[in-house]
Amino acid sequence: MSDASPKNGFNVVGTSPIRPDGLDKVTGRAQFADDFHLPNMLHGKILRSPHAHARIVSIDTSAAEALPGVRAVVTGADFPAVRHELLNLGTAGVLNIREMSENCMAKDKVLYDGHAVAAVAADNPHDAELAMNLIKVEYELLPPVMNVRAAMADDAPVVHENFHPGGFIAPTEKYLPNASRVQLGNGDPEQGFAEADLVLEREYTAETIHQGYIESHVTTVTWDSNDYVTVWTATQGQFALRDHLADIIQVPISNINVVPLEIGGGFGGKERLYIDPVAAFLSKKSQCPVKIAMRRDEVFRATGPSSGTFIKLKFGVKRDGTLTAAHLHMAYEAGAYAGGPLFLGIMSATSRYNIPNIHIDGFDVIVNKPTMRPYRAPGAPQALFAVEQMIDELAHELGMDPIDFRMQNLMRTGDRLVPGFPLAPIDTEKMMETVKAHPHYQAPLEGANRGRGLAYSIWFNIGEISSARMQVNPDGSVTLATASPDLSGTRISLAMQAAEALGIDVEQVSPTVSDTQSIGFSLPSVGSRTTYSTGAIVCEVAQEILKQMCERAALLWETDAADVSVEHGVFSNKTEPGQSITFNELAARMFETGGPISHHRTGHTQSFIPGTAVHLVDVEVDPDTGKVDILRYTIFQDVGKAVHPDYVEGQMQGAAVQGIGMALNEEYFYDDEGRLKNASLLDYRLPTSLDVPMLETVVLETPNPAHPFGVRGCGEISIAPPPAAIANAIHDAVGVRLNSMPMAPHKVCAAVNAAKPAKAA
Amino acid sequence: MSDASPKNGFNVVGTSPIRPDGLDKVTGRAQFADDFHLPNMLHGKILRSPHAHARIVSIDTSAAEALPGVRAVVTGADFPAVRHELLNLGTAGVLNIREMSENCMAKDKVLYDGHAVAAVAADNPHDAELAMNLIKVEYELLPPVMNVRAAMADDAPVVHENFHPGGFIAPTEKYLPNASRVQLGNGDPEQGFAEADLVLEREYTAETIHQGYIESHVTTVTWDSNDYVTVWTATQGQFALRDHLADIIQVPISNINVVPLEIGGGFGGKERLYIDPVAAFLSKKSQCPVKIAMRRDEVFRATGPSSGTFIKLKFGVKRDGTLTAAHLHMAYEAGAYAGGPLFLGIMSATSRYNIPNIHIDGFDVIVNKPTMRPYRAPGAPQALFAVEQMIDELAHELGMDPIDFRMQNLMRTGDRLVPGFPLAPIDTEKMMETVKAHPHYQAPLEGANRGRGLAYSIWFNIGEISSARMQVNPDGSVTLATASPDLSGTRISLAMQAAEALGIDVEQVSPTVSDTQSIGFSLPSVGSRTTYSTGAIVCEVAQEILKQMCERAALLWETDAADVSVEHGVFSNKTEPGQSITFNELAARMFETGGPISHHRTGHTQSFIPGTAVHLVDVEVDPDTGKVDILRYTIFQDVGKAVHPDYVEGQMQGAAVQGIGMALNEEYFYDDEGRLKNASLLDYRLPTSLDVPMLETVVLETPNPAHPFGVRGCGEISIAPPPAAIANAIHDAVGVRLNSMPMAPHKVCAAVNAAKPAKAA
Repeated sequence: MSDASPKNGFNVVGTSPIRPDGLDKVTGRAQFADDFHLPNMLHGKILRSPHAHARIVSIDTSAAEALPGVRAVVTGADFPAVRHELLNLGTAGVLNIREMSENCMAKDKVLYDGHAVAAVAADNPHDAELAMNLIKVEYELLPPVMNVRAAMADDAPVVHENFHPGGFIAPTEKYLPNASRVQLGNGDPEQGFAEADLVLEREYTAETIHQGYIESHVTTVTWDSNDYVTVWTATQGQFALRDHLADIIQVPISNINVVPLEIGGGFGGKERLYIDPVAAFLSKKSQCPVKIAMRRDEVFRATGPSSGTFIKLKFGVKRDGTLTAAHLHMAYEAGAYAGGPLFLGIMSATSRYNIPNIHIDGFDVIVNKPTMRPYRAPGAPQALFAVEQMIDELAHELGMDPIDFRMQNLMRTGDRLVPGFPLAPIDTEKMMETVKAHPHYQAPLEGANRGRGLAYSIWFNIGEISSARMQVNPDGSVTLATASPDLSGTRISLAMQAAEALGIDVEQVSPTVSDTQSIGFSLPSVGSRTTYSTGAIVCEVAQEILKQMCERAALLWETDAADVSVEHGVFSNKTEPGQSITFNELAARMFETGGPISHHRTGHTQSFIPGTAVHLVDVEVDPDTGKVDILRYTIFQDVGKAVHPDYVEGQMQGAAVQGIGMALNEEYFYDDEGRLKNASLLDYRLPTSLDVPMLETVVLETPNPAHPFGVRGCGEISIAPPPAAIANAIHDAVGVRLNSMPMAPHKVCAAVNAAKPAKAA
Repeated sequence: MSDASPKNGFNVVGTSPIRPDGLDKVTGRAQFADDFHLPNMLHGKILRSPHAHARIVSIDTSAAEALPGVRAVVTGADFPAVRHELLNLGTAGVLNIREMSENCMAKDKVLYDGHAVAAVAADNPHDAELAMNLIKVEYELLPPVMNVRAAMADDAPVVHENFHPGGFIAPTEKYLPNASRVQLGNGDPEQGFAEADLVLEREYTAETIHQGYIESHVTTVTWDSNDYVTVWTATQGQFALRDHLADIIQVPISNINVVPLEIGGGFGGKERLYIDPVAAFLSKKSQCPVKIAMRRDEVFRATGPSSGTFIKLKFGVKRDGTLTAAHLHMAYEAGAYAGGPLFLGIMSATSRYNIPNIHIDGFDVIVNKPTMRPYRAPGAPQALFAVEQMIDELAHELGMDPIDFRMQNLMRTGDRLVPGFPLAPIDTEKMMETVKAHPHYQAPLEGANRGRGLAYSIWFNIGEISSARMQVNPDGSVTLATASPDLSGTRISLAMQAAEALGIDVEQVSPTVSDTQSIGFSLPSVGSRTTYSTGAIVCEVAQEILKQMCERAALLWETDAADVSVEHGVFSNKTEPGQSITFNELAARMFETGGPISHHRTGHTQSFIPGTAVHLVDVEVDPDTGKVDILRYTIFQDVGKAVHPDYVEGQMQGAAVQGIGMALNEEYFYDDEGRLKNASLLDYRLPTSLDVPMLETVVLETPNPAHPFGVRGCGEISIAPPPAAIANAIHDAVGVRLNSMPMAPHKVCAAVNAAKPAKAA
């Protein structure tokens, strides 16, 4: 691939063919997890706690068990005691399996409204629902803690008596009652603030939000007589699900096969398991296949939303625009169990500007809400909402153009990031110059209550372990199997890379996503990694396939494999001018030249190859209602190389829409007792097509040296800038800073009204 | 594996653990193809010809199409014209795809009672059946040819106007009207017969028989909007089905995924496709998944039975027992299209004895019956019924012990087989000595109308291409995937070989059979090849896994991989005595030593490694009814190495039961117009448990040098000797030779009655 410059010479990469799953999806023929059916299949329903925090005194399932049609009932007592930690670096760092198990089914305490306490399996969903409602649970209510500041108060109720930190957190000192803490720093912040001409301190809050995938969680599980367990479900990572399930239900990993089905949205929220162990134990008890389908309210109450946050910033800057110091106090909700997106929030907050003296004080905070799980660039929108507003405010105070101010402090390739490694190659300067030169940035914006804002983001896409298998068929078609569930069109983006690397048409390559028994280990489809990391492994497999085919051609020509060259799907004999054979012709002869041609590879790619994005937005604020209308929106994003430009654009726009939703409308409403009041798509306000204008896209392509075509991850980053960009635009429009996300109309209204007397004065 | 002597030192091989699919199968929980269901799935029914030979004048489907609930109708017009031949050596030699297509759906002519002429898909099976019966087909009847001698007559009706030979046949001269011919020879038969002191000429016939698998053919197919086709069915070879289907329905191979489901018996009869292309075109037209389930009568009328035959033998022998010459005229039914088991019949007939002068005249004969397909040791029972009776009769005439006579002419390792290659290593002499020394052979047999007979068989098991993938999981369990459908317990026999090679417990290995998108190419589970050939590839993969694990241990110990040895699942540092780590401990550390440990291999093993068998049977004949009772039955078989002795015994007994069925009862009854009259399990007389006594087994283990544990194929051979052994026993009991198979009571009766005057004379 060394001669394949990512700027030119591509035949397939950079075109936009139709994805193989597209037509069936838009015509309703695609089969999703809820379409899956097995004979004698039972239907499971889960009884969930109505209380945010309570001790389980007793559970009486006798009436449910006596109901005709009920085949099995399980409670936390059916879940075996599991070891506290699973060291499985291949999947997701150090995981707390006991807590993961209890998050699926409570044992002694319920920790949030919606926490599972019992489940039944019956012949039909109706009987299961009836039986579920016959289960009597006696609770001893405990006071809930519902946000990070309340949870970190000295007199806060303690949610976990024996508290363990989670996720990537490496605690540096004694834990707070409900929080684990991480502190990072650089230089001497006190000195830095002393050198500053201007120091600003601000507080920012964000509410709990949900990924809002349209497909609910549905799983079907069989536990057979030999303790073989098969799971059919939509998941972002069949191997992670398999490994976690094995530990929770205590069967050998090799006894589990997870078959990943078509997935109707994940955005990070389908990377962990919730109902699969419940269905497994129901199947074990009933000796029948069991399907569980979550209702929408269960999805909101009991899956993995993203954190509400409290962020306090103190930034110091010299009059010439040089940042001298920063202090960041960042508290992220973890939900019921430790391990929220704090660490990724910290990385997002501090990784764009060189700040010589910096201190970060981070808190992963237990609250009586569902356990937080990743949501597209986890932690970044909340962090940027704070930092990019602070940057904007500093520029404003200094009277500097916001891009000039950013360029003065811009982190460039090789600059050291606070978490401890240098920024991998990317052209941050070009990004800024592109924005500044763009017609949108140059265009005047006229009219009352209109304003323009921007925000800048770097996001560290993941690489790591992927598997791919390729097999040449005698008709010249190529079967491509990977272990990477297709969330966003990655089947076609991987098939395109295979076709490009092999020098054939993309229509010749059929991509598929395999189950865990049938392909090598892979990390889940998370961290914008699939097209980049699995794609790089696909290219390696293609090289091996070409090598094998050169050997076959050499056999036919009775020459040395080294004498065979291949270009654009044609193999040539370098020692015999004119002697050549096409890919398809050679494929047809594989059985006479040694048998099938195939290759499987489990490989590794570099992590933390960043992408960059700037979002530029014009808004109009209605000062009477507080409604914010988006007038114009441009997304600038560096994607390394757009394998499939249409779908790259779709990723940029889709991410931005979700960021706009959380900027203006989305939030969990809890009452005083910790009950979620808006657990439906009617009440949880996702943006609709009426809320969002056309989102323009500008694609930059700074090649990623770790990928043969220069591909970078592109799926997540553009969710991060919208809240900050819109907040900055609102300030530009009406002169007020909205420090609380979402910037719902009532908040905008209140802020405008509060500012009026001051303006009048 | 070089130190693993097949006679000792095994930990797993040679034990008999429970198979992983066993409990679910005996408790009814296992999911078969008919249990498979998809939403919006339609049910397909196939209209079949009631005529054995006719031209299709017209097909009127309008009434069927108008019926409510009918979603699609297809006829031969929907099947595209396909090229005549597919050269795909990987699958099964030169195949005639046009004929394979027309066998699934007739175009211009119907060639047998049951030949498909149209199909419908409807919302439910009832509507489909109603609609099917509304299709009007106008036929122009043609005279049928119903057996090989009629078909080869000079004035026989010609079934195919443009006739092509099929299968392995290499024609040597101009074709006969309905037959292709193969002639093979050695030495000078005329001279040989001149040297003989005794020359016998005999004729033998056999009727068409069916494999009698309990599970019918069922398939579910989706043809999606992008021309991706998925097939869920029970098949002996998902890759063969995929490749043939691709050619018939004309989509690229890589667009097809065949998912092999649990299989309820195959015996060679589920190696080709019948209903899958029909379901595919119905799915294409209806845009819904389509399931077709054959009724039992369709299985008998329209799948692939085994050939009726006519065999004429002339053998010459010297007074001292030395065979001098043989002439074999062997005519095998091919059914409607060319390519029956003739060639394998020829190999079986001539491959046990050294006959210096031999001529074989073989005919693959078109008749108006379903196209013959392989049935466990295809062609061999019919061939042995002839040759082993002839051998017995010669020994009898010479007054020699039948084992001594066989030993005098015995083919040994390295002797040249007529088809042109030497007999691979096997101890034929030891087999004969074992039988002769056995208590059954030595025991006196007393009582009227009782007799003892034996027959001897060599069968040439296939090797060739198999694929396997192994993956070590962090808990030490191992996932083993192959492409070999499990007909007979091969999941456990492969898992055992993996465990043996890795030095771990068999319970740690979970075997699975993968679909065509998820694993490398493999030949079908045919020719007794799975435990031998796929097993050998599994052992190679295990060696690579151990190599990788030695490298990981070397990393931990900061030494060279060459310094790490492994025995019985424990890795040791040769340079540091006492330093060791178990397989499971090392597996747990794989993510810190470089990531997942897995390997995939598509490999090749040697074909035609023979197995041998002698069947020894005592019978009692009721001269009044002609009923033959089996008193005692011993199966001697050389299996190389019995990986799972219980299941090897089961293979020997199961094959023998099928051979006993065809010896005594099984046959197709056709009326004069060529209509099958016994297309049900009530009328097609399979043996029941009442017909067969306990079958004793004697397992010989002459190692196969081409397999690390010495394994030979063992599944097929024991179907071949029963007809001849029983015929020889009947002769011993009542002094008559039954030259027509099955030796049903009425034939035995007639033979005994015909012999009476002669005996009285």
